[in-house]
Amino acid sequence: MSETTYKGSGVDIDAGNRAVALIRGHVRSTYRPEVLADIGLFGGLFALGRYRAPVLVSSADGVGTKLKVAALLGKYDTIGVDLVNHCVNDIFTTGAAPLFFLDYYAAGKLVPEQLEQVVKGLAEACRAAGCALIGGETAEMPDVYAPGDFDLAGFIVGVAERDALLDGRRIAAGDLLVGLPSSGLHTNGYSLVRRVFGLSEGSEAERRRRLAERPPELGRTLGEELLVPHRCYYPDLKDRLGRLKALAHITGGGLLENVPRVLPQGLAARFDTASWQVPPVFDLIRQRGRVPVGDMWRTFNMGLGMVVVCAPVDARALLAEVADARVVGEVVPATEARVILNQGGAA
Amino acid sequence: MSETTYKGSGVDIDAGNRAVALIRGHVRSTYRPEVLADIGLFGGLFALGRYRAPVLVSSADGVGTKLKVAALLGKYDTIGVDLVNHCVNDIFTTGAAPLFFLDYYAAGKLVPEQLEQVVKGLAEACRAAGCALIGGETAEMPDVYAPGDFDLAGFIVGVAERDALLDGRRIAAGDLLVGLPSSGLHTNGYSLVRRVFGLSEGSEAERRRRLAERPPELGRTLGEELLVPHRCYYPDLKDRLGRLKALAHITGGGLLENVPRVLPQGLAARFDTASWQVPPVFDLIRQRGRVPVGDMWRTFNMGLGMVVVCAPVDARALLAEVADARVVGEVVPATEARVILNQGGAA
Repeated sequence: MSETTYKGSGVDIDAGNRAVALIRGHVRSTYRPEVLADIGLFGGLFALGRYRAPVLVSSADGVGTKLKVAALLGKYDTIGVDLVNHCVNDIFTTGAAPLFFLDYYAAGKLVPEQLEQVVKGLAEACRAAGCALIGGETAEMPDVYAPGDFDLAGFIVGVAERDALLDGRRIAAGDLLVGLPSSGLHTNGYSLVRRVFGLSEGSEAERRRRLAERPPELGRTLGEELLVPHRCYYPDLKDRLGRLKALAHITGGGLLENVPRVLPQGLAARFDTASWQVPPVFDLIRQRGRVPVGDMWRTFNMGLGMVVVCAPVDARALLAEVADARVVGEVVPATEARVILNQGGAA
Repeated sequence: MSETTYKGSGVDIDAGNRAVALIRGHVRSTYRPEVLADIGLFGGLFALGRYRAPVLVSSADGVGTKLKVAALLGKYDTIGVDLVNHCVNDIFTTGAAPLFFLDYYAAGKLVPEQLEQVVKGLAEACRAAGCALIGGETAEMPDVYAPGDFDLAGFIVGVAERDALLDGRRIAAGDLLVGLPSSGLHTNGYSLVRRVFGLSEGSEAERRRRLAERPPELGRTLGEELLVPHRCYYPDLKDRLGRLKALAHITGGGLLENVPRVLPQGLAARFDTASWQVPPVFDLIRQRGRVPVGDMWRTFNMGLGMVVVCAPVDARALLAEVADARVVGEVVPATEARVILNQGGAA
């Protein structure tokens, strides 16, 4: 029997060290003065500033099979943006400002240049949200991930003063629902989308050909459409929290499942679906896959990535300040459904 | 073309809901009074208590291919323990007390009962460390993970007062190295170990047969030995931080790479390798795989899971209080190597 070495077992420590060298600059570009430690220690250190009654708000998330689309296109610099923005939006729904982020990247074979592209995206989105990329774990796992396959998860911590937490308790009938457009699919429904467009079957060459298609209604290739990064709503709304009663991040489950989470008992959200433009990609998915309309609304954001609940007077101010915000519905007393889609949809 | 539904695309929302119901009790069993929110919101909320100058210490980690061994044995209730204890130990090296934990679990097909076992382990270890399991993400990713395959990552946040951070600056020549035994392999080197014992080739039945072997020196099956959970050192040491100058968690890279991380420039760690018992599993690995001795020391903990650096007087007190702690070496002025292994090893 020949010698068994760690490198021979499929884990390449040199590649790991090379990856660390490649990502160091990206990571450091996100540091804030509160970051006390540097890469290579056992933990990331963040000195919390002065708060009266700080509440830490945290979330873990992945990017789902959107990363399979990224891998097919060999374009790895946007899924990190997706992941960070998804996480920032999630904790922001409580009113929390992001503090720091950690990632978990696992692959069958560590390709340092590919990891660098992923981290470049993470760092770019972290800088935009004022969030420090404080640590992470890179794992090479032969036998769990097929060659070329990988997974990416993220973890965020933010902070809010306890008395400033957004909890939706003050919501009342007559409040308005203000919608902010999504940039596209964001990070939900990709397993369905990949099936609809035949991206989970056939040879790699075939699947790439399908992604290169230019459906006229999209004005770009299918691959470009499917990789548009998840929009971050924190910069637009962070200085306007005093005007908001609740925020619903429209992720998996769509408007139907995410909006009721923030509504007090006895209230429902009535959306006027004609009040915003459902982007063409959703109609394309529905037609190509013969996806039932109910499944569309239950799976996708259908054009709204964040729904804000506020009093009518605050809604008007918000519309004046955030260019693409619009009133998309109203809070009403609940009868049966917690979400009512008026016109063109099915609840 | 037939209808494409979300369930048909390989993502089973009902299984997801069932999983949430199964894990709820485990998760809640870890809650502390500071936890403000419950499962199902966008983020986990944790009210930080009163600190003068709190520093948040965070870490992300996975369990590596130890989970392939767990999957082969169909025993899923210990890898959660591994993950939490690894993370708790990591942040504890800075002196931080654990506050809360989040997990990321991704599988080709979500098996709620399997996830429940994983979360049961996470919760058990969280309770033991006084850490709240505050959230997590469960992802079903057909096409990334083969049927039966999954991955598990964890994120932890702890806190320490800024002036109580352990940073090793006060370490001086003459300080003692106190070692605490590992419980076994902990969570490192499994890709190598799986190759050595033929666990990454052959049929599943063959691999299970290999895990059922009872090498006389182990006194249990190979499978049992390989799944022994990672030991948590926090309970033994948390009330003794005043006596410690530094803590090194011995993970991937072994003593050779982990101990220098905490030593100031100009100092080295000299271990007397005869002062502790290297558990038989390491010799078994070395012999069966003809693994070079240097690779053994660079890959495995070799029987020490945590190394404490302290002044001789404090070392004596520590030995009196922690039953299985022992002096394993000394801090000396550095000449060439930062770690010197006296007797029986190669550095």
